[in-house]
Amino acid sequence: MAVPRERTPLYRQLAGHYRHAIDAGTLAPGDRMPSVRTLMERHQVSLSTALQMCRHLEAQGLLEARPRSGYFVRARARASLVPVAEPRPWMPDLLQYVGINQRVSSILARGLQADVKINLAVAHGSPSLYPVNALRQATIRALRDHPMLYGTPPPGGGEARFRAALARRALEARMNVNPEEIVVTHGCIEAINLALRAVAGAGDVVAVESPTYYALLQTLESMGMRALEIPTSPQTGISLEALELASETYDNIKAIIVVPHFQNPLGSVMPDSHKARLVTWAASRGIAIIEDDTYSALGDDGNVPAAVRSWDTTGNVIHCASLHKTLAPGMRLGWIAGAKWQGRVEMLKYAQTRPNEALAQIAMGEFIDSPRYDRHLRHLRAQLREHRAAMAEAIATYFPAGTRLTLPAGGLSLWVEMPGGVSSELLFDAALAKGIRVAPGSLFSNSARYDHFLRINGGQPFTREVDAAVRTLASEIARLLDTKR
Amino acid sequence: MAVPRERTPLYRQLAGHYRHAIDAGTLAPGDRMPSVRTLMERHQVSLSTALQMCRHLEAQGLLEARPRSGYFVRARARASLVPVAEPRPWMPDLLQYVGINQRVSSILARGLQADVKINLAVAHGSPSLYPVNALRQATIRALRDHPMLYGTPPPGGGEARFRAALARRALEARMNVNPEEIVVTHGCIEAINLALRAVAGAGDVVAVESPTYYALLQTLESMGMRALEIPTSPQTGISLEALELASETYDNIKAIIVVPHFQNPLGSVMPDSHKARLVTWAASRGIAIIEDDTYSALGDDGNVPAAVRSWDTTGNVIHCASLHKTLAPGMRLGWIAGAKWQGRVEMLKYAQTRPNEALAQIAMGEFIDSPRYDRHLRHLRAQLREHRAAMAEAIATYFPAGTRLTLPAGGLSLWVEMPGGVSSELLFDAALAKGIRVAPGSLFSNSARYDHFLRINGGQPFTREVDAAVRTLASEIARLLDTKR
Repeated sequence: MAVPRERTPLYRQLAGHYRHAIDAGTLAPGDRMPSVRTLMERHQVSLSTALQMCRHLEAQGLLEARPRSGYFVRARARASLVPVAEPRPWMPDLLQYVGINQRVSSILARGLQADVKINLAVAHGSPSLYPVNALRQATIRALRDHPMLYGTPPPGGGEARFRAALARRALEARMNVNPEEIVVTHGCIEAINLALRAVAGAGDVVAVESPTYYALLQTLESMGMRALEIPTSPQTGISLEALELASETYDNIKAIIVVPHFQNPLGSVMPDSHKARLVTWAASRGIAIIEDDTYSALGDDGNVPAAVRSWDTTGNVIHCASLHKTLAPGMRLGWIAGAKWQGRVEMLKYAQTRPNEALAQIAMGEFIDSPRYDRHLRHLRAQLREHRAAMAEAIATYFPAGTRLTLPAGGLSLWVEMPGGVSSELLFDAALAKGIRVAPGSLFSNSARYDHFLRINGGQPFTREVDAAVRTLASEIARLLDTKR
Repeated sequence: MAVPRERTPLYRQLAGHYRHAIDAGTLAPGDRMPSVRTLMERHQVSLSTALQMCRHLEAQGLLEARPRSGYFVRARARASLVPVAEPRPWMPDLLQYVGINQRVSSILARGLQADVKINLAVAHGSPSLYPVNALRQATIRALRDHPMLYGTPPPGGGEARFRAALARRALEARMNVNPEEIVVTHGCIEAINLALRAVAGAGDVVAVESPTYYALLQTLESMGMRALEIPTSPQTGISLEALELASETYDNIKAIIVVPHFQNPLGSVMPDSHKARLVTWAASRGIAIIEDDTYSALGDDGNVPAAVRSWDTTGNVIHCASLHKTLAPGMRLGWIAGAKWQGRVEMLKYAQTRPNEALAQIAMGEFIDSPRYDRHLRHLRAQLREHRAAMAEAIATYFPAGTRLTLPAGGLSLWVEMPGGVSSELLFDAALAKGIRVAPGSLFSNSARYDHFLRINGGQPFTREVDAAVRTLASEIARLLDTKR
């Protein structure tokens, strides 16, 4: 059985077992499921558990009930679904387009004004996936243990035990970071802001993955830096050939920002050989690497991949990360290790927001330093895997032919290419009118390259309502396709 | 009797009464205090209360005990203490000096390495002055009332009730701010960062008060902006004549930053007529005003002065403030109202650190929206007044002749000019070696203008240890003076 956990209800354990069989092809589309009576006998479970299991797999789109005949494995469209194409090489160009902030602001504003019932635009898990009660208790303990906490300014750099715990966790990604080098920040986004300010200034060129998350493009634009978009594989991440080529044309690249693992929005993972080559090459060219490692704990196989930083021997890799996606979307705790720019990073943090408040650090530090964090991560990964697969299935089943989709091996996002060049912003508005929010591909580049893509959240339980929302999206896409013909 | 409060012990109420009499001259230096027996009869108090009261006033430097004669009003040096001079007009110049960050970092680092026993370098009250228990309880309530708080990203702009409470409190400063215009930030320093980024860019000129708080100079330097230091009166704040004159020479001033009330480090307060004139003039010149209003609730008389923003009719004043100094130094909650730059401020906040976490906002919102905040502020003001006066007395008593000091009518800081051009950094190091930390004047300007000044914290109880520290400072200054001769 797949991932049996103490707290997992029996019907879900069973469902995992049969999902596995379906994934493996042991049960093929059109096959009849064992009858409820058979299930009860075979697994020694009650009628209610057997039924609940079947309904659960039905809700996930894996089974269908046929009147008076029982449950059958559903015909799955995934086989017909083509992964998103590898990027055709393009010469990275410094697009003159400025206005990503305006575009993002306008889309966020439309999203906020609408009455959104199903929000597929986010890039975090649903609240039920996070250990909110344990963190609340940890916070209350911290308040009791530190009665004068609110009376004294928080310690510079961060709270000692939290920094030590982060440094210990970094070992899992094969990094040796001194706790003193860790500067606690307001989420990974502040870490990225500080890293960029440390290594570059207005007018400088910064190489980024394409597509990349819009917060990064916003930050670059707000600092007057120029984003050089590098072709990026949905499988293996940034193209090193394209990057090396671009550096022949642009001799003023100051930094490269990479999300090596489960990249947002692609879900790509850089192979170790790429990371090693990138580190050596960037050091030889005097180009700083800024690594955003927010998602690396979210791989399906549970192995934390080695950070780019782990290959660094010259202090050329600034490591940025966050607990926002892995531990608590309601907390904004990130960190940065500034490598050879450490002094400047510390100064900028002090001048920008001062040290972070201590309370959250104490509470989170206690949690991540315990096996409870490991247990939580195992649970979170299993859930994300299930939710992501169910969402991919639904897209494969309902979206029009020609849709392309890569199912990543971890992370929170699905990156979907719509057929026929359907405009993601038209779809965004049409979906919003029906109470559904998605993230249009136009947010993820300064170019028009991804205008017919969508980022769909893979971090929420696949309920009947979500299923209905995916059907609605599918019919809106079909309608937009018709309009184009 | 002065400021009778429910929780004030009897001996402190009595002490306030006699302090008043001494302040008013009813009891003159050299006068004998009523005997302990007289005090007991006159006020119907116990022997212990009467004695405690006398010892308290002795500790504050107001009385001295003469063996077998009782307590006498101490000869006070304050009369001989000259206020800090009004600035001699200088032509504001764009100093080429860059390196305030290096200087600040070096001084902070030295301060952190040393074994500091008495820290007079801070600009906040001691922990005992803040309602830490009430805020802890409010936080625990917030955690109980919002069980899913840690599971969902915090709301954009800030938590609704907190913003509404801030808007209501702003009415006290005669401001009409829509709660929607309030963006919650990480302390006032993030608000100032956002305001500067909204109105200016690298290379631009920003007019500042001189002296000003070093965080501001750091922020400007870190953004590559140029600080134009304007002469500022210890009494009435920034010199409008000098500012107007400077604008004739520099036609590229993008913004003016003012701390209108109880300025850090001077303690100056701009008269209403100056604020009105500044607003009209700046609007006519197209120069943005950034108002840092962190200290306005800390006036001895308890009246919140009208914000500069309250005179604004053209959307030209960005208002920044914080609860860090008035409610909880351990919390980093500030806010900004972006006036005509609101859209850009919102975008920059989103790109820089994302919305603040909700927990602290809920807890603080509940507190500041209740009369408990008013009671706390009354208590805080009374305590600060007492601590500031005691510190000023001690400086007047112990520091060498020629020392100048202005006693502000509110706030947290004392600004002290040492005689004979004694170097504040030499004193800083000498004091640090004895476990005492002060803020050297060289931190408060890019010029050498304040190298012989000190900022001394006026926010901590004047204990025997603090008294001893001031004596030590005095003798170190005397020693440095001797060295110079």
